[in-house]
Amino acid sequence: MPLNADAEIEITALAWVPEGARGLVKDLRVRWALEEAGLDYRVRLLGGDRPANYRKDQPFDQVPCLSDGTVQIFESGAILQYIGKQSEALLPIDRQAKYRSIQWTYAAVSSVEPFVQFRVLLDAVFADQEWASPAKPTFDHYAQLRLGQVSAWLGDKRWLEGDRFTIGDLMMVTVLRIAGRGGLLADKPNLADYVSRGEARPAFQRALEDHLESFAQNQPEGVAA
Amino acid sequence: MPLNADAEIEITALAWVPEGARGLVKDLRVRWALEEAGLDYRVRLLGGDRPANYRKDQPFDQVPCLSDGTVQIFESGAILQYIGKQSEALLPIDRQAKYRSIQWTYAAVSSVEPFVQFRVLLDAVFADQEWASPAKPTFDHYAQLRLGQVSAWLGDKRWLEGDRFTIGDLMMVTVLRIAGRGGLLADKPNLADYVSRGEARPAFQRALEDHLESFAQNQPEGVAA
Repeated sequence: MPLNADAEIEITALAWVPEGARGLVKDLRVRWALEEAGLDYRVRLLGGDRPANYRKDQPFDQVPCLSDGTVQIFESGAILQYIGKQSEALLPIDRQAKYRSIQWTYAAVSSVEPFVQFRVLLDAVFADQEWASPAKPTFDHYAQLRLGQVSAWLGDKRWLEGDRFTIGDLMMVTVLRIAGRGGLLADKPNLADYVSRGEARPAFQRALEDHLESFAQNQPEGVAA
Repeated sequence: MPLNADAEIEITALAWVPEGARGLVKDLRVRWALEEAGLDYRVRLLGGDRPANYRKDQPFDQVPCLSDGTVQIFESGAILQYIGKQSEALLPIDRQAKYRSIQWTYAAVSSVEPFVQFRVLLDAVFADQEWASPAKPTFDHYAQLRLGQVSAWLGDKRWLEGDRFTIGDLMMVTVLRIAGRGGLLADKPNLADYVSRGEARPAFQRALEDHLESFAQNQPEGVAA
């Protein structure tokens, strides 16, 4: 089991988040990759008040960061590549296959996630805003456009580039889980099945369990779970 | 001059775009990187109606793609890495410096660009929507939050990691140019100066000139420039 208090690799994660964010915070991406690669890691949990110097590690005050004595980096995409470089199971060595995998990590966080995320936020943190409801048709359009394009690309393939799971799939599955949580995959069965294939991987299951464990242990007094 | 009809590297770009998009279409990122690296390239221009099979090359129907006989990839971030791998001037070999550079490309397109882009769209393609004006305070908040975090990180440094320009800066400058075009850098002088330093590079100037040239040559009849 990769969680190991003496591990060289340290990642940051949040000690507690509300129910709606559980399973979606981005440390899950890195935990999943580390489990796939079989690399031991330890976790530095951060409370709601970040340490004063945390922005030296992460300018956007977010998680995850990864440090291991060789690198000190943030952004889940860069971290997945760094882990992938240590595990051909996650990032192929062949140049075409390698850059196709890398390309899909950017596609997930840049060409899909923003459109899905803003649409989902209209039903969540933006829900009380007067403009949220009238904005939905526009944001629906963009979210469904991009999800439809991923669905058309995937077709009946198992993973984005065929039979082989890579960091590109890992990233895309975590982005599509946001869409699924927001009910946006209802008419995209091949994407829903693709997410299920990702979630069925033992490495994902272990990562999710460890991701969720700290939230139960750090439930603030007087705050609803 | 890297534009060369016989070059092995081919990128895709748009034959024509309206005034508001000029200088911001993402082929500029790749042209700039190729100029910095001194790599010859040719351009495959696409009209408003894409070839029927273009989504086999680019599932989101966008530009740029890059092909060179070794790889066939899309997403400007992946392409910058591929070019960077052929030019230490753009992507350091030292592991910490390399992954810091890569990290900033993800930060630019994932942690900054979506917030800037949606705010700018409220004054552009969304401007006629009834919800656009009331949504501005919320989107202003997020855009300024992220721009402020980049500004705080940059401080008085020349580039994001100090004295050395990398693909991380190239990507961040192109994202901040969107913010600048939308008037969002008015109270962030260090970011405006950072953008100016990027734009002053001879490689950027050559890339921008070639990026703009096709628009003048392909002006549709009866459409305002």
